[in-house]
Amino acid sequence: MVAEKLRIGIAGLGRMGKRHAINFHELTARANVVAASTPDPNERKWATEALEGIEIFDDYDEMLEKANLQAVVVASITAVHAEQTLKAIKRGLHVICEKPISIDIEVAQSVVTAYEESLKTHPKQKVMCAFSRRFDESYREAHNRVQNGEFGSPVFFRSQTADLYDSSDFFAEYAKTSGGIFVDCSIHDIDLMLWFLGEDRRIKSLQAVGVCAVHPGLVASNDRDNAIATVEFEGEKIAALYCSRMMAAGQEDTSEIICEWGSVRVNMQVRKNHVEYHDSQGVRRELPQHYYERFREAFITEASEFTACCLDDTPPPISLQSSVKAVSIGQALQRSLISGEKIFFD
Amino acid sequence: MVAEKLRIGIAGLGRMGKRHAINFHELTARANVVAASTPDPNERKWATEALEGIEIFDDYDEMLEKANLQAVVVASITAVHAEQTLKAIKRGLHVICEKPISIDIEVAQSVVTAYEESLKTHPKQKVMCAFSRRFDESYREAHNRVQNGEFGSPVFFRSQTADLYDSSDFFAEYAKTSGGIFVDCSIHDIDLMLWFLGEDRRIKSLQAVGVCAVHPGLVASNDRDNAIATVEFEGEKIAALYCSRMMAAGQEDTSEIICEWGSVRVNMQVRKNHVEYHDSQGVRRELPQHYYERFREAFITEASEFTACCLDDTPPPISLQSSVKAVSIGQALQRSLISGEKIFFD
Amino acid sequence: MVAEKLRIGIAGLGRMGKRHAINFHELTARANVVAASTPDPNERKWATEALEGIEIFDDYDEMLEKANLQAVVVASITAVHAEQTLKAIKRGLHVICEKPISIDIEVAQSVVTAYEESLKTHPKQKVMCAFSRRFDESYREAHNRVQNGEFGSPVFFRSQTADLYDSSDFFAEYAKTSGGIFVDCSIHDIDLMLWFLGEDRRIKSLQAVGVCAVHPGLVASNDRDNAIATVEFEGEKIAALYCSRMMAAGQEDTSEIICEWGSVRVNMQVRKNHVEYHDSQGVRRELPQHYYERFREAFITEASEFTACCLDDTPPPISLQSSVKAVSIGQALQRSLISGEKIFFD
Amino acid sequence: MVAEKLRIGIAGLGRMGKRHAINFHELTARANVVAASTPDPNERKWATEALEGIEIFDDYDEMLEKANLQAVVVASITAVHAEQTLKAIKRGLHVICEKPISIDIEVAQSVVTAYEESLKTHPKQKVMCAFSRRFDESYREAHNRVQNGEFGSPVFFRSQTADLYDSSDFFAEYAKTSGGIFVDCSIHDIDLMLWFLGEDRRIKSLQAVGVCAVHPGLVASNDRDNAIATVEFEGEKIAALYCSRMMAAGQEDTSEIICEWGSVRVNMQVRKNHVEYHDSQGVRRELPQHYYERFREAFITEASEFTACCLDDTPPPISLQSSVKAVSIGQALQRSLISGEKIFFD
Repeated sequence: MVAEKLRIGIAGLGRMGKRHAINFHELTARANVVAASTPDPNERKWATEALEGIEIFDDYDEMLEKANLQAVVVASITAVHAEQTLKAIKRGLHVICEKPISIDIEVAQSVVTAYEESLKTHPKQKVMCAFSRRFDESYREAHNRVQNGEFGSPVFFRSQTADLYDSSDFFAEYAKTSGGIFVDCSIHDIDLMLWFLGEDRRIKSLQAVGVCAVHPGLVASNDRDNAIATVEFEGEKIAALYCSRMMAAGQEDTSEIICEWGSVRVNMQVRKNHVEYHDSQGVRRELPQHYYERFREAFITEASEFTACCLDDTPPPISLQSSVKAVSIGQALQRSLISGEKIFFD
Repeated sequence: MVAEKLRIGIAGLGRMGKRHAINFHELTARANVVAASTPDPNERKWATEALEGIEIFDDYDEMLEKANLQAVVVASITAVHAEQTLKAIKRGLHVICEKPISIDIEVAQSVVTAYEESLKTHPKQKVMCAFSRRFDESYREAHNRVQNGEFGSPVFFRSQTADLYDSSDFFAEYAKTSGGIFVDCSIHDIDLMLWFLGEDRRIKSLQAVGVCAVHPGLVASNDRDNAIATVEFEGEKIAALYCSRMMAAGQEDTSEIICEWGSVRVNMQVRKNHVEYHDSQGVRRELPQHYYERFREAFITEASEFTACCLDDTPPPISLQSSVKAVSIGQALQRSLISGEKIFFD
Repeated sequence: MVAEKLRIGIAGLGRMGKRHAINFHELTARANVVAASTPDPNERKWATEALEGIEIFDDYDEMLEKANLQAVVVASITAVHAEQTLKAIKRGLHVICEKPISIDIEVAQSVVTAYEESLKTHPKQKVMCAFSRRFDESYREAHNRVQNGEFGSPVFFRSQTADLYDSSDFFAEYAKTSGGIFVDCSIHDIDLMLWFLGEDRRIKSLQAVGVCAVHPGLVASNDRDNAIATVEFEGEKIAALYCSRMMAAGQEDTSEIICEWGSVRVNMQVRKNHVEYHDSQGVRRELPQHYYERFREAFITEASEFTACCLDDTPPPISLQSSVKAVSIGQALQRSLISGEKIFFD
Repeated sequence: MVAEKLRIGIAGLGRMGKRHAINFHELTARANVVAASTPDPNERKWATEALEGIEIFDDYDEMLEKANLQAVVVASITAVHAEQTLKAIKRGLHVICEKPISIDIEVAQSVVTAYEESLKTHPKQKVMCAFSRRFDESYREAHNRVQNGEFGSPVFFRSQTADLYDSSDFFAEYAKTSGGIFVDCSIHDIDLMLWFLGEDRRIKSLQAVGVCAVHPGLVASNDRDNAIATVEFEGEKIAALYCSRMMAAGQEDTSEIICEWGSVRVNMQVRKNHVEYHDSQGVRRELPQHYYERFREAFITEASEFTACCLDDTPPPISLQSSVKAVSIGQALQRSLISGEKIFFD
């Protein structure tokens, strides 16, 4: 039934904002994008063509004021995620915010607090951070199987986010504000780590090391292009992470959950589709070239499920507090990466 | 841009009709389902709930008469495909018809003729048969690569449609009207064979053999549950087909295009998703359980591209004549399967 | 225990003869190559260097006469397989003969008869044809599983032998005496077909079609470079074969045994070793380049087991009669390939 | 040519000693096992049956004294590896010693020194430690490709040794003398790490964490059953290791070498053979159950190449100093594992 449609406003129409806009507007049966706001005139021009009949604003506050919204997608630059989310929370609107809410943990935590307060007066309000990988069909099946206890308790979680090499200077520039490779690249792996090992599980220690192998310019920003980390949890659980911006073949995001009497692997045979080529070089398959190519379906599912939880008043698929915890772990790993010190938590 | 939406009526709301209705209505940006017709009251009840605000008819003719349609999806029982398609053609409507148009080749050919006639007065009219596999991302990439000549000229095409075993009596009953396993199961492989080897390429000979291994009841309907065929084409090209209704693990639809200096394989490592399980039995992956689970995305793409060709007046993605040829080959294979004779074409 | 070693003579030291000589001499604990015969002086020179201390003859009869042999490996040219085998049989020697015994079925059958006669006076004599693929670890495990009934009765057997393309004129020349692609390439698939479906199972019909895609010179020898066949057995079983001399990536020998409630696949993910390369082309694995690279271990096992059956008086691993049957099926397929006619057996 | 055969004595006929004895005696063309020594009467009994005609001793010194040896295989318990190797070195014999030479680094280093001294008087003497994985065809091909610079300089090395879970109390007992999981399990990964990243490359830091998930008894021996480590090298290179004694499906030893513009993966699709099973659980392949099943061929190659380097006076395939370095890294990781501290090297 497509009786009621959630009225959504999109804040920010950059690369991810455009994708969210299309996914909610065209591919989410129960949602309508009714407004969008962006300070960028090119993005507004795109919206007039691509999102028929919606209201377009150059100012986020004005959109909140004038458009008749039930929910907001915050897909603007990271620097304003927290502020825009807070403003929407105050108006009682549902919010799905691109990750991270903030790279300043205190600010991020203040958003969680504001949401908890708001729930007292708007008990049906939904606020979540867009950790798309939790909506991927394969990760979900893996999580269900592990949760069902089919393989015993998870012991070791290993995961990586490895991006295709980008020969442009983009990363060196981007690294200045990204929060570093563990906050930027590994944040999904950290989120999955919490999802599989326990969102409330206490960390005993963590450490990271890394190198600048192909992007020497990253050193100036206290960043690296390949890095590895280990995390030690209470309750006899460990995790290992790898992040890279140097892959030759494509996006190689893999995860392994090794449990007491079995294990589950996601995407270990990374592939773009069902095709293999046999030629004089051997047998070859191709890879997705970027994150969105690998996880497009997960983003569509995310849009659909966020919409459903708002309309049906069911719990948000991801806890906001857990999303803040993921960022704080990413930051601790980044500190260890740069200082070389192992960090212990008492 | 979602300015104009194609106004679509759905004929038949059985399993495939429901899927088409949802895909066109909810997941096709440029289409609106505005009406549906079905003689089945349960299907009409489903439509009132699932397809908000559309007009619902118990009679196809009445829908054509009263609903303001631009296009019709014919998803009713095979026996009325041709008749319903013809009626829509006469009104100048666009039509996408589930395969096969008819299992009577003369009837099927008469639909092609009617469409060709109609084009004289409705030059922008689009009529096509829904061969979903041509819209699958993997098959498309395979076809592009072969067409580009990357591996030389195709020499041998091998393909199979192998369905999960169904322990119910469904098949024995279904076989009475299905046209037989080569018309029912293999029709997509035959369509792909024509797509890869040439829709106009002449067949020199074909033959088939088969068995009833798990569905002995099929013998009474002159059908088999496992069958293999070879097809010999002019121009030094050959093809082998396998069809089965006995798979234990799931839907195993695979294709290979072996060319002069390389080959392309589609789905040889059949898998449902990106997950592997390691347990005391070894390493295991799961399979899609039925055709739609494997090809759901292709159906959505089909809906989107059919809609686009109607609105933008571009050529239909599949030639109607080729679809009739596929059925005629399927029928010849079925005759050979039952008679045991090899069939030669002069 | 390596107490007694089987004294072996090798007839013929061409490519396969050399391999057999090394395998029996160096890698078979219970065998000693004590003599070899070949009319080729270069091969004799090789033997003096590679096979320390053995007796070397230019004449097969002289070797049988003078060397103190218990067993003979017949690895000479196909034209003398039968004659050399017969001579060894008459002396009561064990024989392992390269396939085929003869491409003349009557001749081949006469060898079987001679062996059966000889057994009356030499009940411990072992004569077998070297069908190496039956000694491959993977095929054996597949056969064991199917024999154990784990997947129910086999229904459909599909197998292929597909060789790397050879751009030299070798094939056109070789084809003049090889017996044709079904006798030469497919003989192992046919042997496996009998092994899996039943060596005594009666064939109802068979047929083949093929093309000359890359070796046009083969037409003159009534041969083809790509061919496909179907075989229909009594007891509701069918088989499909493919043979090719046109592979771009390497040796692609695969088999599938599809049973009532499961199936077994051998080598569907053809690969040379455990390595994969990720580069800008995607993920790539390499293939064995020829038959021996794929099946080297099977040849060593064959040598060891043939030796053991001779020394321990256990049954030969492969029935001689079955090997003759394989050749006769290959020839019937070749006849059908050239005539285009389907062949029925009453 | 098999003219001269290396006369070998085996010290120790436990599980590995038996394998070495058979490999050198039956499967190495240029070697003869002429003697063996072991204090264990059952092992001596085995030798009289399995190794025809060799001299058997209950005392290693007596074997060195009386048997006419050119080379010794030291396969006894780890506690006597160094002593037995030293004695053979003093006699000018070639030695291949099972790893580790000693778990006491000073002792191990003294063997290296003794060998270097001995070379002054026996310049053709060969002494090496048996790191079998370097003889595996797949690792070799991976190493060749990386050495050739095909993928640029290696940046990140990741490797794991993961053994099948053993429900017996073996590990708890074994752990008391094994040196710990990083010395016992990971030693091959450490050796490969040095092989791929540079045997002379300086380590900047390392650290490890681990858990006792299924073998709680290991805690008493300061050991763990799952552990992960990171190693930081000079020259912008990093490594991550995982070792486990908890695998459900079999032996899962995998390695990845990620280089600047490509990467090489060894055994990421762990499999026992070329067979796949399709049944109601999905598609399944099986795994080798233990280290030897995976690496049997490598052990045979090792025997052959060690023999060749002794007979032909070519350099030993592995540097003895590098083997000692591997043990010292394993011990440092084990210390970090137990103390929790990161270890920095200036």
